[in-house]
Amino acid sequence: MPTQPIEIVHTRGDLQAAISRHLAGTRRRSLEVGAENVRVRRSAGTPSLGLVPTMGALHAGHRALAESAVAGNDVVVASVFVNPLQFGDAADLERYPRTLEADAALLEEAGVDIVFAPSVEEMYPGGEPEVRVTAGPLAEKWEGASRPGHFDGVCTVVSKLFHLAMPGGFDGGRVAYRAYFGQKDAQQVAVVRRMVKDLDFPVEVVAVPIVRDADGLALSSRNRFLSGQERDAALVLSRALRLLEARAWAHEPLNPDDAEELIRSQPLVELDYLDVVDTDTLEPLAFNCRETPFTGEALAIVAAKVGPVRLIDNMPLRAR
Amino acid sequence: MPTQPIEIVHTRGDLQAAISRHLAGTRRRSLEVGAENVRVRRSAGTPSLGLVPTMGALHAGHRALAESAVAGNDVVVASVFVNPLQFGDAADLERYPRTLEADAALLEEAGVDIVFAPSVEEMYPGGEPEVRVTAGPLAEKWEGASRPGHFDGVCTVVSKLFHLAMPGGFDGGRVAYRAYFGQKDAQQVAVVRRMVKDLDFPVEVVAVPIVRDADGLALSSRNRFLSGQERDAALVLSRALRLLEARAWAHEPLNPDDAEELIRSQPLVELDYLDVVDTDTLEPLAFNCRETPFTGEALAIVAAKVGPVRLIDNMPLRAR
Repeated sequence: MPTQPIEIVHTRGDLQAAISRHLAGTRRRSLEVGAENVRVRRSAGTPSLGLVPTMGALHAGHRALAESAVAGNDVVVASVFVNPLQFGDAADLERYPRTLEADAALLEEAGVDIVFAPSVEEMYPGGEPEVRVTAGPLAEKWEGASRPGHFDGVCTVVSKLFHLAMPGGFDGGRVAYRAYFGQKDAQQVAVVRRMVKDLDFPVEVVAVPIVRDADGLALSSRNRFLSGQERDAALVLSRALRLLEARAWAHEPLNPDDAEELIRSQPLVELDYLDVVDTDTLEPLAFNCRETPFTGEALAIVAAKVGPVRLIDNMPLRAR
Repeated sequence: MPTQPIEIVHTRGDLQAAISRHLAGTRRRSLEVGAENVRVRRSAGTPSLGLVPTMGALHAGHRALAESAVAGNDVVVASVFVNPLQFGDAADLERYPRTLEADAALLEEAGVDIVFAPSVEEMYPGGEPEVRVTAGPLAEKWEGASRPGHFDGVCTVVSKLFHLAMPGGFDGGRVAYRAYFGQKDAQQVAVVRRMVKDLDFPVEVVAVPIVRDADGLALSSRNRFLSGQERDAALVLSRALRLLEARAWAHEPLNPDDAEELIRSQPLVELDYLDVVDTDTLEPLAFNCRETPFTGEALAIVAAKVGPVRLIDNMPLRAR
């Protein structure tokens, strides 16, 4: 239960002021020896800030992101910004749902302190940025193959958000700074991790596991566009991933062909890709998945069109 | 005169530890009420960190950069790193002078606290970065036209340095963070300013005026490659810029043709470009420089080959 109302800010200046105020408040609370902490967070040791970048239209998957951030940090900022740079298609950008009031309510429930909801003009004053962050080879495959420029747009806006929410510190040191991304967008997580490493952002990237409905379907704001029949058909994606997960657990050869066959048996589902890849590089595994018993770790990824909607899902594989 | 020996660090971890230690020391000094400050800096108000990114081979121009940073900040870091990404030519990179010992002595004299001198492997562990910062249209003209990719390399390494030297803060707030660049590389200044704006780096970019020899030649590590005769010939560049400066002061039409003619009268100098541009966009002025009396502000830029060396110079123009 939230102990104070969430603070909604729209400008970079107000965001920085709110972050500094909340961090200073945290510090004061932890200095009041003997006083009961209003809100128990990780107030011992280095103070910390969690950032949850979102495009709004929040569902229970985002809520899990926010709750992870709240559990692990003294102060949590969520951003709600539909970033034009990462949309290839103007119509797609136009119809993207904007539901700030409901989003803020969900974030407040999760215990988030500050919502940063800038306008496009606030984020890109004077028009689109000239200097950008380019995601490189990691962004050219899988989702990037069907969405050219998408991950460059993601990297550029995430760089800006990382800077805008950058916390100050205490006694000359840095506040711990963590950013939370949903594992649902596995390639986005890999690209952002690579960006943080390659450009030395002082941020720790935390990937939060996929949240699924009881029937296994990974939560997505696009699920609302599925008919009942299409939704039933879409369950084959998570079932195929579960098959691979079970084989990985059991040290069996993964044989992804079986999983692929399962998906192809469902006429309403049009498979785009299913593969088992390295979690960081997203390169397909070097060994023969059909014959070699599975050891170690990997990531199974899938994308398919179901009715009007393109769905993605993934599953970490780990030999037990 | 330096009051303590300069600290030379080679790794990102040691850099962050040194910055935190120096900032905490500053804070302690300013808290010791009544104690005489060992070193008078801007210790009142927000603590501050100055960063001076260099490629080493330092001369009096760099010294002016360092001294500006020292005068304006509590703690100053200079980096010395020959960045492979911004060299188009491997041989050019190979023969670039490395003189860390002399560089550290000059920086210590200037009052710099910390030198960050990383190896290529420390800056680019595992090879060149995949995710990069691209400089955009501003980098395609003038120097960029003859050095494709150069400013992308600059933006990428400067992003990393900005992050690696990022100071913490006090009481939840940010330490003021300033980065110092030489106005000699006017296009680099414009590109870095644009990068800071477009990507919201929490850094203030400070451009330090060009340092000239008594005869007017802008200091450059390349001047050493000029013969006596070539050096005399090269003076025509600053003379041409002074001509434009005087006309700007006097509200006269600039008529850059005269300046160009002056340069072309010198047979040892092969002019690449001479133009009067907007300081931020580097676009040529929109009005007719030949007829319209000069008002406002602009930048005169010049590049020329003199003997074996390509020289650049520039001059801010301001109507008085």
